[in-house]
This record gives sequence, C-alpha cells and structure tokens, in this order.
Amino acid sequence: MIKTKRMLAEAAAFSRPFRISNGRKFRLSDVDPGDTRGLKSKQDAAKLLERGREVLAEMQDRLYAQDRWALLLIFQAMDAAGKDSTIKHVMSGVNPQGCQVYSFKAPSPQELDHDFMWRTTMCLPERGRIGIFNRSYYEEVLVVRVHPELLRGQKLPPRLITKHIWTDRCEDITSVERYLHRNGVIVRKFLLHVSKEEQRRRFLARLDQPQKRWKFSIHDVEERKHWNDYIHAYDDMVRHTASAHAPWYVVPADHKWFTRVVVISAIIDALAELDLHYPRIDPDKQKELDAVRKALAAE
Amino acid sequence: MIKTKRMLAEAAAFSRPFRISNGRKFRLSDVDPGDTRGLKSKQDAAKLLERGREVLAEMQDRLYAQDRWALLLIFQAMDAAGKDSTIKHVMSGVNPQGCQVYSFKAPSPQELDHDFMWRTTMCLPERGRIGIFNRSYYEEVLVVRVHPELLRGQKLPPRLITKHIWTDRCEDITSVERYLHRNGVIVRKFLLHVSKEEQRRRFLARLDQPQKRWKFSIHDVEERKHWNDYIHAYDDMVRHTASAHAPWYVVPADHKWFTRVVVISAIIDALAELDLHYPRIDPDKQKELDAVRKALAAE
Repeated sequence: MIKTKRMLAEAAAFSRPFRISNGRKFRLSDVDPGDTRGLKSKQDAAKLLERGREVLAEMQDRLYAQDRWALLLIFQAMDAAGKDSTIKHVMSGVNPQGCQVYSFKAPSPQELDHDFMWRTTMCLPERGRIGIFNRSYYEEVLVVRVHPELLRGQKLPPRLITKHIWTDRCEDITSVERYLHRNGVIVRKFLLHVSKEEQRRRFLARLDQPQKRWKFSIHDVEERKHWNDYIHAYDDMVRHTASAHAPWYVVPADHKWFTRVVVISAIIDALAELDLHYPRIDPDKQKELDAVRKALAAE
Repeated sequence: MIKTKRMLAEAAAFSRPFRISNGRKFRLSDVDPGDTRGLKSKQDAAKLLERGREVLAEMQDRLYAQDRWALLLIFQAMDAAGKDSTIKHVMSGVNPQGCQVYSFKAPSPQELDHDFMWRTTMCLPERGRIGIFNRSYYEEVLVVRVHPELLRGQKLPPRLITKHIWTDRCEDITSVERYLHRNGVIVRKFLLHVSKEEQRRRFLARLDQPQKRWKFSIHDVEERKHWNDYIHAYDDMVRHTASAHAPWYVVPADHKWFTRVVVISAIIDALAELDLHYPRIDPDKQKELDAVRKALAAE
C-alpha cells in the first residue's frame, strides 16, 4: 500500500509538469524536447516504466471489472516522434481484451461523406476499456490546416469554409470532449514533442538500418518542409483545446525512454482520480454465493 | 418559377409560426394542439401536401446530386401523436435512395456501453441525403428523465449523476447540433403536440379497429399517467435546445392533415435556404462531353 502511494506520487511528479489544462499563452517553443526532469539514465527510466506497467495492469483490471468508466488516450506528433513505440512500450502489459488501438490515416470517401468526427466516434472505447487513437480528429486542425487542398477535398458546402473554421473546429472538439467526460469517458491527449534535429537523426537511422527502412516514406521528408506551419498549428490547437476535463500533455520526445515514463505516469495519474474498484457484492448475493460454495465443496 | 416562388412563400407561412429558434420562456401549454392556421378542410390540406411533395422531390434530387449538404429531421412526440404517419405521408414522394429512416427504441447493452449519442451518430445521414430519426437522443432528456430508474440502468459512474444532468445533456446536444451544422448537416426538429383528449380517442380507435389493434401497447396507457411529467420535460428540452442552427418546430397534432402540411413546409423552407443545384461542369469538361456526344452520334 505504501509502495502504491509512493508510485502514485511518482506518477504525479513525472506527468503533471507537462500537463496543460488551460492553453492560454501556450507556445511549443517554450517546451524543451530534450528535457528529462533530472532522470539520468535509460536504465532508471526502464525501471520506472516496468513498475508503472505493473500498476497500470492492475488498474486496468479493475477498470474492466467495474465496467463504468472508459479511458481515451490520443496521440499526436510529428513523424518519427515515437508514437508507435510509445504505445507499444507503455501498453504492452495491459490485457488486450480491455484495450483497443486505432490508427487514423487519410479519410475514406465514405468517411468524407460525414462530419469529421464521425469516423473516430465509431471507435470510441466502451465502458471498462482503454481506447487509443494513434492520430485522431486533431488531424483536422493540423495536416488539414497545413495543406488547405485537403480541406477543399472534404466536400464541405463552400459557404461553410470560413476564416474561423480552425477555431470553430477546436470549439466543437472541446465541446465533444466535455460531453464525453460527462458520460464517463476520461480523455487524455499526448503531443509528443521532438526536435527537428532529432527527427533528422531518426530519419537517417531509418534509411541506414535495413529492418527500419520500411518505416521510411518520402512523404515524411516532404512534411519536414512545413515544420514551422505545424508548430503554429500545434500552438493554436493546444491553446484552444486544452481543458481541465481533457488536458494535453506536451511530452519531450527527444529521449524515447523519457517519453514513455511521462506517458505511463499520466495514465496512472488519470486512473488514480477514479473510484476504481471490483464490483461490490451485496450481502444477499454473498450469502447465496456462500451456499453455492458449500454445496460445491460437499459434492 | 413564379409557381415555385409562391410555394416557397406558402412553405414559410405554414411553418415559421411554429418554429422556435430561441426557447427562452417556452411553454408547451401556450401552443394549441388543435390549431390549423385557418386551413379549413382536409381536402385543402391534401392539395397543399401533394404540391409540397412535388417540390420536395425536386429539391431532394438536387441535394443528392450536389452531394454536399445533409438534412437531419428529428421527430419526438407523445404516443399516438402521429410520428409514423407523418413520416409516411410527408416523405413518400422522395427517392428512398436518398432518404434513411431510423427508429430508436430502448438502447441495447452494447449501446449502453457508450456515451448516449453514440448510437445515433452511427446513423447520421451522409452528404446528399435526408436522415430521419423517429425518436432520437432527445429521449435521454424525456423518457429517461420521467423514469429515473432508466438513468440508473445506464452504467454511468455514480459521481456523474448530478442534479444538473438534464441541463448538461441539453448543453451537450446543442453543442453537437452546432457542430453538425458547421459540417453541413442541417438539423430540424419536430415536436408533434397532441392533446390528452385526442390521444385518448386515438387509443380507443386502435382498440376498436382490428387493423389498428397491433399498434396498441399496454405500455402506452401506462405512460399516459406521466403526462404532466412529460409536459415539464418537453418544456425544459425546448427551452434548452432550441437554436437558430437547429430550431424546434412545435407542431399542432390534433389534426393529422395539418401536422403534415406544417412538417413538409418546414422541410421545404429549410432546403430553400441552401444553394442547392446540380453539379456544375467546367468549360473544359463541357468540351470533352461535346466531343464524346459527337462521336456517339456518328457511330
């Protein structure tokens, strides 16, 4: 129990400095992508991660049994910031029956026939589960904003494409996230923040190592040219969609081992706020079960 | 063209008196369920309805071809107020390929595992289509409010069941409808307002006519006992969810022939506000098509 208390305190300490519940004045450039909060080595981080995974597995088991709350984790980042590997390393200890990961690529024609949150709504986690969005409806104020031709391809009636479409979209997202919160879906959002130089190194590593080469896409290098546009879009996104009920965590991502510690800490910190417990059995039911037990034992 | 103009004016005249874009101070008891706006006979109404259906069929054809806007029509009412027959008579002239009707009954266990708008979001109309919800997420502030045991069955975490849950739900619904509007889904909501005495007559008719008897359910008579609770819930619902982008039409429903005229008028009035047109072909494409035509003719 003391051990758990200490671990919850640790989770708070490693995640809250990066949590943004009110985005006013946020600037991504104020966050150091190389920060490690004093954590010195990969080894120390690995130990923290391992302990975190044990706590998380236990919490998730209760979340699933209780079947009331759902947890939605959203990941956004530049290419090569480590979304996939973070999801892999943070969530690997969790029972896959209670955890669903969805990756959202370019929308299909059928999806474009709907409002932009339709396709992600389909995939929202059910009560008792953890849902992970690897990219999400936030692409609608990121890649779509950086590439206006994508917006033109969305089949919107022209009169609805106004100059305040991005703040409108952020307002709509914020409202939907508040609604989800009110209905028992806890939303936590992660923006993995990698430096341009570290991205360059990771792209080179992908090109140089045969087993990583499949991850490289010419398209990723094209997007690098829009780096500053993305930074601007991220700034605006966090400013307009960070809230107490659905905070952003802007996570330093130049050291993958540190990214993982922050993300798992944030998840544990979020679950710790809930009243997670195994379903309680009322006294009548207890008696009934006792009788069944007795009969089985005597059989 | 003049004919059309006159019909659009007619549509405005028969629907706007019942439109509520701002619900402040709304009271259902201020609306006369027997009102017919001076329309004297069933025959006059039938003629209006017939002409309306022609206009609507033409508008829907353009809506479908243009493939940009969607229209969502929501119907709520006491039992026997005429939802089913209104949908049948108003929409019968429309190409079913461009029109989908969904009836929402008690939510399934799978649906209860999600936020309360999840199941209706699945069924939102695609661009170019008309979607009809026969009952909807508004049941969440109507039947669920009148019967608190339903709320207790929704698997919400207890701390989320607060005393302002109904206004919260209305706020969430209003936000989602604004979002839909911004994304090209035009929302129009119909509350068919029948008197308690007329409901009694219709229930008796169902019991007395063998071909209507299947429509009768003991449950409907039970609900009659909660009449005043429903009126209170309707008042609150309209007050908190009527908006310029998603108005309520509170439609007198003691004369079914009049209900139909008001509903079709409101739909036409809504579509008239859109820039509906067949897709335009650019000059290059025109030339190309001319050449193809020539070749085909000469074959």
